[in-house]
Amino acid sequence: MTDFDYDLVIIGAGPAGLTAGIYAARARMNVLLLEKAVPGGQIIVTDWIENYPGFPEGISGFDLAEKMILQAEEMGLKIETAGVHSLNLDKDKKEVVLADRTISTKSLIIASGASPKKLGIGEDRYMGKGISFCATCDAPFFKDKTVVAIGGGDTAVQESIYLTKFVKKVFLLHRRDQLRAAKILQERAFASDKIEILWDTVATGVEGLFGIEGVHVRNVKTGEEKTLKADGCFIWVGTLPNAEFLGDDIITDEYGFIRTDGRMETNIPGVYAAGDIRDTPLRQVSTAVGDGAIATLAAEHYIENL
Amino acid sequence: MTDFDYDLVIIGAGPAGLTAGIYAARARMNVLLLEKAVPGGQIIVTDWIENYPGFPEGISGFDLAEKMILQAEEMGLKIETAGVHSLNLDKDKKEVVLADRTISTKSLIIASGASPKKLGIGEDRYMGKGISFCATCDAPFFKDKTVVAIGGGDTAVQESIYLTKFVKKVFLLHRRDQLRAAKILQERAFASDKIEILWDTVATGVEGLFGIEGVHVRNVKTGEEKTLKADGCFIWVGTLPNAEFLGDDIITDEYGFIRTDGRMETNIPGVYAAGDIRDTPLRQVSTAVGDGAIATLAAEHYIENL
Repeated sequence: MTDFDYDLVIIGAGPAGLTAGIYAARARMNVLLLEKAVPGGQIIVTDWIENYPGFPEGISGFDLAEKMILQAEEMGLKIETAGVHSLNLDKDKKEVVLADRTISTKSLIIASGASPKKLGIGEDRYMGKGISFCATCDAPFFKDKTVVAIGGGDTAVQESIYLTKFVKKVFLLHRRDQLRAAKILQERAFASDKIEILWDTVATGVEGLFGIEGVHVRNVKTGEEKTLKADGCFIWVGTLPNAEFLGDDIITDEYGFIRTDGRMETNIPGVYAAGDIRDTPLRQVSTAVGDGAIATLAAEHYIENL
Repeated sequence: MTDFDYDLVIIGAGPAGLTAGIYAARARMNVLLLEKAVPGGQIIVTDWIENYPGFPEGISGFDLAEKMILQAEEMGLKIETAGVHSLNLDKDKKEVVLADRTISTKSLIIASGASPKKLGIGEDRYMGKGISFCATCDAPFFKDKTVVAIGGGDTAVQESIYLTKFVKKVFLLHRRDQLRAAKILQERAFASDKIEILWDTVATGVEGLFGIEGVHVRNVKTGEEKTLKADGCFIWVGTLPNAEFLGDDIITDEYGFIRTDGRMETNIPGVYAAGDIRDTPLRQVSTAVGDGAIATLAAEHYIENL
C-alpha cells in the first residue's frame, strides 16, 4: 500500500466539517481540515439560532461557530486555511490539489457547504453597495431606511423580521401567493407593521448610481411593473452547492448537491459528503452535525478495511 | 377527513424526540410528546459528553438533557408522562393507545430509543462510574488504564480495538471459545499486543468503592474464578430497541430497529422513526438531533399534503 499524507482530509469548516473533525481527532485519526475562508461556515453570518438543541435561549451563529472551532481545536484538530483546486479520486488513492501542493489521503469528507443563489439583478455590481445576502452583516447600514427583501422561505422571513430592528420598512417580495416559511415565522412577519408583503411579485432589476435607489418589480399575475424606492435589497431565494472543485467523478443531483447513502458515502468508496453540500432533505446545524459524525464513522470503518 | 387530536405525536423524549418537538412546536404544529419515564433519554445517565458540537468543555448528559427540555418547553412543546401501550396504524388514521385513553394523530414520530443489553453485574450502580456501553463516548476517560471488555460480536471486537488507541490494556472476555465477529476484526484483535482475550469466560460482578477497581470472572469450562484488576468495564453484548409497543405493522431489521429512508419515513406513510430506535449507522446525540429535525420536516410535508 502506498504511503498517505493523511487518514482523512475534510474540506470545509462549517458545522458538518467541524463535527467530522471533532470525531476524527477524538478517534486519533491523522486528519486535516481545510477551509478556504473563515472557519464556521454560513452560520457565522447567521444572526440568531434558536433551534439547535442545547441552547434554550438561542445563540448567535458567530458564537456557536466559535464554540465548535474551539472544541475541534481542543480535541487536537489541525485546521489549515487553503482552498481546494481539484480532486484526483482513484479507487486506491485520493489526492487533494491545493494552490501550493498536492496532498494524499486514505479517505475524504466533503463538507464545503452551500452559498446563496443569485437572481442576476445586479448582485455583482451592487454587492456591498446596497445588495446583500446577510442581514447580520449589513442591516445596521440601513438604519431607518427602506429595504426590499426577496424570498418566501424560512431564511427570507426570519431575516426580514431581523431587519425590522434596524430599518423603517421592509417590502418582502414573494413570487407566490403564500410563504413557505414556518408558521411561527409567518405569524411574526404578519404581525410586524414594518413588513409589507408583495405577493406574486418578482424583482427584475435595481437602479442607482453609487448605491441602490430603487428596485424594479413585476407582478407575475397582473403583469404590472413598478419601481419601489429603496436603499437596499436583501436576496434570500435559495442555495447553491460550493462544488467548483468537485469534478465529474462524484455523482450529484440536478442542482449539484452530492448524492450519498445513509452512511454519507458517495459513489466513490472512501469519499463522503456531509452537511449542506449533500442532497439532504434539510439544511440545518442539527442535520449537519449528524452528517459529520456519521461520515467520520464511515471513514474510520473504510480505513480499517483497506 | 376525520378529526384528529393532534397533528403530530412524538414517542420518546431523548435528544431525537426533543429535537423533533422543538422543530414541531416552532412550526406551530399541534404536537404532543409522550415520555414514559424521565425526559432526556439515555443521556441523563451519561456522565460526560464531549463530542456534541457546541460545548468545548464538554457537558454532562444530565445538563444537556435539561437544556434540551427547557428549550422544547420554551418553544411551547407539551410533554406528557405516559407509556405507550400499542399503536393502531391505519393508512388514514393513526392511534396511540395509552393507559387511560387513546389519542389520534395525523403523523407519528417514534423516538423511543434503545437500551444496552445488561448482564446484571452492577450496571445500574456503576453506570458512569466505570461501567460503559460506548467506547466512542468514554474511551478517552481511560487513557493509559486497564479495562475489561465483554462480548464476542462485531461491536465488542471493533470497540476493543478502538479502545487500544487510548488504554494500556484490554481484557476481552468472551463466554465461548471463538469470536462471532468478522474475521478481519478478529485478526486485528489477535494482532494487538494490548488485547488479551479470555476465552470461555464470563463476568460475574465488579468491585470498587467509588469506581471500578476489579472485575470478577469465571471460566465456564474449568469453573476457575478470579478478579481482574481494571479501572473500567465495557459491556457489548447487544443493544435492544425500546419497541415493546410497536406491533407488527412497522418493518424493522432482524434486531427490531425500525427501517427508514433518508427522510426518516417508515414503511407506513406519515410514521417516522428517529434516533437510536432507527436502523442508523451511529447512535449519538449528534445523529439523534439530525434525525429528529428531519423527521419533523417530513411529517410537516406529509400533513400539508393530506
